[in-house]
Amino acid sequence: MNEVLRPLDTLNGARNKSVLVELKNGRQYVGKLRSFDIHVNTVLEECEEKVDGELKRKIGTTFIRGDTILFISVN
Amino acid sequence: MNEVLRPLDTLNGARNKSVLVELKNGRQYVGKLRSFDIHVNTVLEECEEKVDGELKRKIGTTFIRGDTILFISVN
Amino acid sequence: MNEVLRPLDTLNGARNKSVLVELKNGRQYVGKLRSFDIHVNTVLEECEEKVDGELKRKIGTTFIRGDTILFISVN
Amino acid sequence: MNEVLRPLDTLNGARNKSVLVELKNGRQYVGKLRSFDIHVNTVLEECEEKVDGELKRKIGTTFIRGDTILFISVN
Amino acid sequence: MNEVLRPLDTLNGARNKSVLVELKNGRQYVGKLRSFDIHVNTVLEECEEKVDGELKRKIGTTFIRGDTILFISVN
Amino acid sequence: MNEVLRPLDTLNGARNKSVLVELKNGRQYVGKLRSFDIHVNTVLEECEEKVDGELKRKIGTTFIRGDTILFISVN
Amino acid sequence: MNEVLRPLDTLNGARNKSVLVELKNGRQYVGKLRSFDIHVNTVLEECEEKVDGELKRKIGTTFIRGDTILFISVN
Repeated sequence: MNEVLRPLDTLNGARNKSVLVELKNGRQYVGKLRSFDIHVNTVLEECEEKVDGELKRKIGTTFIRGDTILFISVN
Repeated sequence: MNEVLRPLDTLNGARNKSVLVELKNGRQYVGKLRSFDIHVNTVLEECEEKVDGELKRKIGTTFIRGDTILFISVN
Repeated sequence: MNEVLRPLDTLNGARNKSVLVELKNGRQYVGKLRSFDIHVNTVLEECEEKVDGELKRKIGTTFIRGDTILFISVN
Repeated sequence: MNEVLRPLDTLNGARNKSVLVELKNGRQYVGKLRSFDIHVNTVLEECEEKVDGELKRKIGTTFIRGDTILFISVN
Repeated sequence: MNEVLRPLDTLNGARNKSVLVELKNGRQYVGKLRSFDIHVNTVLEECEEKVDGELKRKIGTTFIRGDTILFISVN
Repeated sequence: MNEVLRPLDTLNGARNKSVLVELKNGRQYVGKLRSFDIHVNTVLEECEEKVDGELKRKIGTTFIRGDTILFISVN
Repeated sequence: MNEVLRPLDTLNGARNKSVLVELKNGRQYVGKLRSFDIHVNTVLEECEEKVDGELKRKIGTTFIRGDTILFISVN
């Protein structure tokens, strides 16, 4: 293992893959990770908003402001 | 795909197009994306405020402070 | 249109004009835009505080701290 | 009018005059503006705390942390 | 009066004197001002926590994080 | 003991070990600490979300935004 | 007394001693102060979480994120 591995490296490895973004307000967004930056601003493609696991809205290509994000699960 | 694609590039591609800005307090603003900056401060033209999908107010050219924004859907 | 147009340029075009400043706590301030800075700290002249569209207080020349602002409508 | 007028210039013009500082939590402080800085940290002399316009406490020379401030009325 | 007087100068003049620190959550701390920094992090000696003016706890030499502070009364 | 020991050194010593991350909203995440940065953004592998000590969800490799974190217990 | 004494100097003098860390959410952590940084990120050893003065959990060596901290009592 590389001692200087950083959290953003993990996001970088998930580009173009489906990820789950969970926000501080409890909402969930699932979509293909297109890009992110050091503020964790994140763009998802074909983004779906879910509440309690159920699809609520399809909102297409979506820029999510990083400071609203709780976690990003990359599995 | 370009590995160094950044979230603001997606916003840049949406200039002069209609976007949906959803705030942390749940309000929605729809309008033509005129400009934005690194703080995600955003100016919409012909901006309409919506609550639960219904038009509440027309507020014209509007500067939205970036730290209030949850997401921007560019579809 | 100039590709590098920025949100503060829109505020700059509204100097000396009447603007509506809506805060995160729901209050509204209407007055002549005298100045602003990169934090969106804003000074309004002849500033009127409104609640639900009704005049509540006249507070004259007023410095509004930028981080309290939701949007500024410049129409 | 000078195009590069900034919000802090307005505060600078109010030094040694009585100002009203209203906080995000609704409290009001009235006193003589002694000093301020770029964070809008503010020192009032002979500062009086008011609730609904009525005097609650006299707290003398008082340093108010800038990030608690909603607005400063300089009239 | 010196035009470039700054808020921290007022705190500097209160070193080793008794001050009242009131927090955003309403708590009050009274003690001798030992030190502070630009973030308004503050150390009080023989610090007493008060609620509604009544002594609640004696907590000795105490480091108070600046971003929790509403005001510091230096009288 | 080294006088210049820093908090992130403690996290560095916990790489590849199981840690407990508790968030400001009360949620707990347990997993293997893969990486972290100066903002305390943290990546856990085989991450399990727990509520009141009971497993709620398995969310795999997960990036947790640092500003949501209350503490990280490294034992 | 040294005029340039700073708040972090007080924390530095408390290294390896037992301190009380009280958070903005009311929780208390007692333990041996191992390290801290300019953000007031703090590591306690043999850390005990207390609620209303009663032991709730032993969480061992613990990294506490600085922005959650209200005060650190070093007596």
